Amino acid sequence: MKRTLLILTAALLCCVLNAQNIVELPAPMKNAHMTLFQALEQRASVRSFKTDEILDQTLAELLWAARGINRPDGRLTAPTAMNNQEICLYVCREDGCYLYDAKGNCLVQTSEKDVRKDIAGRQTSVAEAPVFLVLVADLNKYGDITEHAITYGSVDCGYVSQNICLACEALGLATVPRAGMDQEVLKKELGLADGQVLLINHPVGYEK
Amino acid sequence: MKRTLLILTAALLCCVLNAQNIVELPAPMKNAHMTLFQALEQRASVRSFKTDEILDQTLAELLWAARGINRPDGRLTAPTAMNNQEICLYVCREDGCYLYDAKGNCLVQTSEKDVRKDIAGRQTSVAEAPVFLVLVADLNKYGDITEHAITYGSVDCGYVSQNICLACEALGLATVPRAGMDQEVLKKELGLADGQVLLINHPVGYEK
Repeated sequence: MKRTLLILTAALLCCVLNAQNIVELPAPMKNAHMTLFQALEQRASVRSFKTDEILDQTLAELLWAARGINRPDGRLTAPTAMNNQEICLYVCREDGCYLYDAKGNCLVQTSEKDVRKDIAGRQTSVAEAPVFLVLVADLNKYGDITEHAITYGSVDCGYVSQNICLACEALGLATVPRAGMDQEVLKKELGLADGQVLLINHPVGYEK
Repeated sequence: MKRTLLILTAALLCCVLNAQNIVELPAPMKNAHMTLFQALEQRASVRSFKTDEILDQTLAELLWAARGINRPDGRLTAPTAMNNQEICLYVCREDGCYLYDAKGNCLVQTSEKDVRKDIAGRQTSVAEAPVFLVLVADLNKYGDITEHAITYGSVDCGYVSQNICLACEALGLATVPRAGMDQEVLKKELGLADGQVLLINHPVGYEK
């Protein structure tokens, strides 16, 4: 009996240790008042950021705008080829790396490492942004990874990236879409499989 | 004297016939009142259109939103890698094909042929749209056409395409981004060179 209890306790402890850290997000209000055309008029890349934090409420608005669910059937704010929904959105900040789960409106932690400097690389002016969003195309959703799959994944990445650019304007944030990042570090810390391609990253913060 | 006059008249006639037909557009007002977040909430692909015409004023708003100039230095509403501005936007309608000139706010005719059925192909439900926008990546702007250039061009195409999706919502129009189209017909009628790649088209009209 004592041995059984010990085994059960060990099993439970193991489960708890393996459980993914999940950060629940506040419900997005979607009530920023800026018109689409004002956001288009103001859209510009910014490469210098204050270190001020971004509130979870603001982050929830931004992530929903980027590739949130906007219909009961689970379709998204950003179109994807054949509704493959292959663009995965990661949030990287001081306390680690997270995958955005649009359905659960939460962040699922993949790493406790702060990889912001690994994303910024030599472009040190962007390294102080409190948040980096990283866009990954999961080309495995196309079956074979053909030239077509790479093109579709890249176009679909652009949809999400432009949503981020415009939503930053509407939320008083600043950003710039970038291609450069330390691919090896990110593959490891985001837990990417073969066929999951790092395409674009966005430092996000308040303009310095 | 008579012969000289005849030659001059012939030369003048030749110039007139070769001159590109240019359609001036009204200045975009950019005053559609829909917020960015409302446009994101409503974004959905539509594949069935009324044949009703789109007014030039509405078209001017849509084209500016897609890849118009939003700063005095000529930068655009859509970001492009290294500010290459490689996405060319064509307007195809009953009276022919046109290249959108953002700086001149005008359409430069490339063909008098109505190619809408060639773009729609077997997806006949979209063929009745009064306008098709066609997005071409001019990869020659990257120098060598490497795998990177194809990826950058595709991502940049996504930025313009998402601007079109969102602006259609704000302007009361409907659209769907599509990859399929008759490449051979379009290359000819849009006057594309090698390295100018047809990526995405958008039927645009009022939802049926």
